[in-house]
Amino acid sequence: MGRAVKIGVVGAGSAVYALGLVRDLCLAEHLYGSRVTFMDIDPERLEVVGQLANRYAEEMGVDLAFETTGERAVALRDADFVINTALAGGHGWEESWRHEAEKLGYYRGLRLQTNFHQYDLMLSLVRDMEELCPDAWLIQSSNPLFEGCTLMTRESPIEVVGLCHGFWGYRRLAEAIGVPSDEVQWQAVGVNHWIYLTQFRHQGVDLYPRIDQWIESESEDYWHEFRGGYGETQLSRAAIDHYLHVGLMPIGDASRTFSEWYYHTDLETKRRWYGYLGGFDSQIGWSRYLDRLAERVQHIHDVALDPGVRVTDAFPPERTHELQVPVMDAIANDRPGVYQVNVPNRGAIENIADDVVVEGKALVDGAGVHLLHVGPLPEKLMYTVLYPRVLKAEKELATYLSGDRDMLLSCVLDDHQTRSLEQAQQAVYRLLCLPWNEPLAERFGHEPLECDLGEYDLPDVDEIL
Amino acid sequence: MGRAVKIGVVGAGSAVYALGLVRDLCLAEHLYGSRVTFMDIDPERLEVVGQLANRYAEEMGVDLAFETTGERAVALRDADFVINTALAGGHGWEESWRHEAEKLGYYRGLRLQTNFHQYDLMLSLVRDMEELCPDAWLIQSSNPLFEGCTLMTRESPIEVVGLCHGFWGYRRLAEAIGVPSDEVQWQAVGVNHWIYLTQFRHQGVDLYPRIDQWIESESEDYWHEFRGGYGETQLSRAAIDHYLHVGLMPIGDASRTFSEWYYHTDLETKRRWYGYLGGFDSQIGWSRYLDRLAERVQHIHDVALDPGVRVTDAFPPERTHELQVPVMDAIANDRPGVYQVNVPNRGAIENIADDVVVEGKALVDGAGVHLLHVGPLPEKLMYTVLYPRVLKAEKELATYLSGDRDMLLSCVLDDHQTRSLEQAQQAVYRLLCLPWNEPLAERFGHEPLECDLGEYDLPDVDEIL
Repeated sequence: MGRAVKIGVVGAGSAVYALGLVRDLCLAEHLYGSRVTFMDIDPERLEVVGQLANRYAEEMGVDLAFETTGERAVALRDADFVINTALAGGHGWEESWRHEAEKLGYYRGLRLQTNFHQYDLMLSLVRDMEELCPDAWLIQSSNPLFEGCTLMTRESPIEVVGLCHGFWGYRRLAEAIGVPSDEVQWQAVGVNHWIYLTQFRHQGVDLYPRIDQWIESESEDYWHEFRGGYGETQLSRAAIDHYLHVGLMPIGDASRTFSEWYYHTDLETKRRWYGYLGGFDSQIGWSRYLDRLAERVQHIHDVALDPGVRVTDAFPPERTHELQVPVMDAIANDRPGVYQVNVPNRGAIENIADDVVVEGKALVDGAGVHLLHVGPLPEKLMYTVLYPRVLKAEKELATYLSGDRDMLLSCVLDDHQTRSLEQAQQAVYRLLCLPWNEPLAERFGHEPLECDLGEYDLPDVDEIL
Repeated sequence: MGRAVKIGVVGAGSAVYALGLVRDLCLAEHLYGSRVTFMDIDPERLEVVGQLANRYAEEMGVDLAFETTGERAVALRDADFVINTALAGGHGWEESWRHEAEKLGYYRGLRLQTNFHQYDLMLSLVRDMEELCPDAWLIQSSNPLFEGCTLMTRESPIEVVGLCHGFWGYRRLAEAIGVPSDEVQWQAVGVNHWIYLTQFRHQGVDLYPRIDQWIESESEDYWHEFRGGYGETQLSRAAIDHYLHVGLMPIGDASRTFSEWYYHTDLETKRRWYGYLGGFDSQIGWSRYLDRLAERVQHIHDVALDPGVRVTDAFPPERTHELQVPVMDAIANDRPGVYQVNVPNRGAIENIADDVVVEGKALVDGAGVHLLHVGPLPEKLMYTVLYPRVLKAEKELATYLSGDRDMLLSCVLDDHQTRSLEQAQQAVYRLLCLPWNEPLAERFGHEPLECDLGEYDLPDVDEIL
C-alpha cells in the first residue's frame, strides 16, 4: 500500500513518547512493512520500549518491525527518517542546575539555554547522519527546538524538520469561545514556543472579536473559578494580558510568555497570572508535571513488562496529537498534507532572517517541506517579542559556538533577574563547575573565573567635595 | 579665497556651543564672507550670542556677518548649512523627569530616550528644510544623535551629518600609554556614544599591547590616586573592565558603558567603577557638570554684555575640537579631509543594517560625506553591545513613530532596573502626566493607563495541594 521505511529513533527511552509513536505507527497503514530501530543509552528503559512496541504491533496484527540498540550508528545506518527525542541529562540535570541557580537568587533558574550538551548531541547527530544516511530527514522533537534546528540547518546539509505539539492550544481557545475546534481556520506563526495567532476564522468569519468578547464578559468568572491543571496556560490571565499588550494571541507554550519576565518574578506573581498552581513553570506546576510524568512512565513500564496484560487494552489504539507519523507518511508516500512545522524561514516571515528556523504551516509531500508564505508580522509583536527573542537565540548560539566566556557572562547579565556583575560571575562559575559540565568548562576555558580588578578604597564623598 | 555660505544655527542660545562655533569660524579663512543666522526661542540668550559673535568678528577684523532671529524660517531660508544644537526643554526637563523616575525606584532615571520632543523637533526641522533650503546639509549636533540622525535620514531626503566630539577619548588613551596623541593612527567605529577602537597604531606598530601593559602595571596606581573630573571616564575601571569583556576599547562616551547596566546600579557601585565622583553620570558627577556648565554660561554672558572687556581677550582665538566648521569648509570649498562623522551605514559596517546611522571616519569633500569601509565588527562586540544597542534604538524609534503605549511600556519593562509591571506602568503614566509632555500624552492616547485585570483571591497553596 505504501512505502516501507527505516526509522531510527534516538533517545528512544522516553516511554511516553515512544508509546505515542508506536500507537501512531500501528495506525498508519501506508507505513506498514517499516522497520523502527530504537536507540538509547539506558538499556533498561530501552528494553521496556522494545517490549512495548513489539507486543503492541503483535496484538494489533500489523507488519512493523521494532528493534533496539545501544549504538546510534545502528539506528542511523540507511535510515529514511531519524527522530531525535534525546534530552542530554534528562530533567535531572536541568533540576540540579536550577537548584544551584536558585541559591544565587535566580527564581526558577536562569532564563537562558545553558544545557549546551543538547547542541553537542544535535551536531554530532547530523554529522553522523551525513555519513550513515545522508538523504534521511531528521525529525527533531526535543528542546531547545528553535535554537537546535536553527543550529543544525546552518551547520549541516541534512534536512531537518522540528515538530512540537504546543500549537494545539488554538483548540482550547476555540472551545472557550464556543466554536468546534475542528471547524476553525487558523494560522499561528513565529518561532517555536513563541507563536502567535495571525488568523482565526469560523466559516469565513474572524473569531478575534469573540475572543475579545470572552475576555470582556467571561474571563473573570473563568479565572475566579479556575482550578485547572499545570498545563492550562492558554486562557490564563498572563496569556490574555500578553495578548492585550502585543495585539495577537499567544498560542500554546507562547502563553507561558517567557519573553515577559514580569509574570515570573516569584510564586505570588505567578499565581496572580496563572492561577493557584502558578502555571506550568512555577515550583508547584513543574513539580506536579514531573510527578505525573514519573507516574505515567512507571505505569507504561509496569504494563510493558507484565505479560498478563494486553498492552492494547491498557493503551487503546488511538491516534495521538503528535505529527511525527503523519509527516513521515506525507514525505515517504508523497501524500500531501498541511502540518505545523519548524524549518528555516527562507522568506516566509518577511521580518525574520532567512536562516532562522521559524514555526508555521507547511505543505509536506514527497518533495519535502514547503513553508506557507506569511508576510511580515506586525511591528508591535516583532519589537516586543520576536526581535528580542531571535537576538537572544542568536547570542546564545554564538556563545556556544565561540566558547567565549565573556559572551556567556553577558548572556547571564541579560537575564532580568541578575542584580549585579558578581551574581552573574558566580552563576557562570557554578554552571561550569557542575559535575556533568566538564566538557562545557573545557569549551569555555580554564582560567580563574573571577574578574578581580583589585582593591579600591572608597573615600567618603562628603569629605572630598 | 573660499566660498561665502549661509549658515543657519538652530538652538543657538547655547552660549558655550555658539562661542566655540564663532571662534572656529573666525579662524576659517576659506569661509570668510559667510553669513550666520542664529535662531533660538529664548530672546535673551539669543541677544548674548549675537553680541558675542559680532564683537568677536569685529575684534578679529574678519568678514563674517552674524545675525539673530526668533523665527526658524529666517535661519533656514537659502541656507547652505543648518546646524541643529537644540535640546527641547534643555536640561531642566531632563532633570525633572529623572527626579520623577527616581521616586519610582529608577536610580538616575530610566535608561531610555523619552524626550520625544527632540524627534518632533528634528522631523519638523528637516521638513522645513525641504521647503526652504532643500540642498543644504544638516549638521546635527544635539542628542539623541544616533537615533535622531537615523530617524531623519529615513524620513527625509535632506543630507544629514551628525557630529560629536566624544571620539577624542582616543587621545587620552594615547597620553596614558606615553604616545604623542597627534602621531597615532586610529579607527573608532560603532554608533554614536558606542564606538570602539578597531585600530590604534604608532609608526605602524599596534598599540593594543601597550594598553594591556598599562592595565597590567599602571592601572591600579592610576585608579588608586584618581582624583580627576567627572568627565574622565576613558581610563576608568569600568572602561577597562568593559574592554576586557568585549575585546575592544570603548572610546569617549562609550566608556560610560551604558549598555552595561551593572556599572550603574547605585552610587556605591558607580564609585567603585568610576572613582570618587561616580563618573559623569552619577548624581555627583552630573550635578557638578551642570554646575560647571551654568558657571561657564554665566561667564560668557557677563563677557558678552560687558563693553569694557575685549571678548578675544576673555576667549582667545584658538580652534576648538569641534568638527562643524572643518566639515562645512570641506564641503563648501571642496577641500577634502577625513573626519569622524555619523551618517547612514550603507554597507560600511557589514553587520549593521544599511539605513542605521553609524559613526566612523569619512572623507568629506565637495561631493559629500564618504564613509570609509570598515568591514564586519567582531561577533563578540556585536552580541554584547551593538546588536542590542541597535535593536533598542529601533524599538524606541518604532515606539515614537507608532504612538503605541504598549510599545512604550515594553521599552520601560526592558530597563534592567524595572522590577514589576506596576512599576513600569507607573513610569509610563507619570511620564505622560509631566506638564511639558502634553503632546506626548496625546500621541500615546488618552485611555486610562492602569491595566486592571480585576480582583483575584489567591488561595493558600498548601491548603489546596
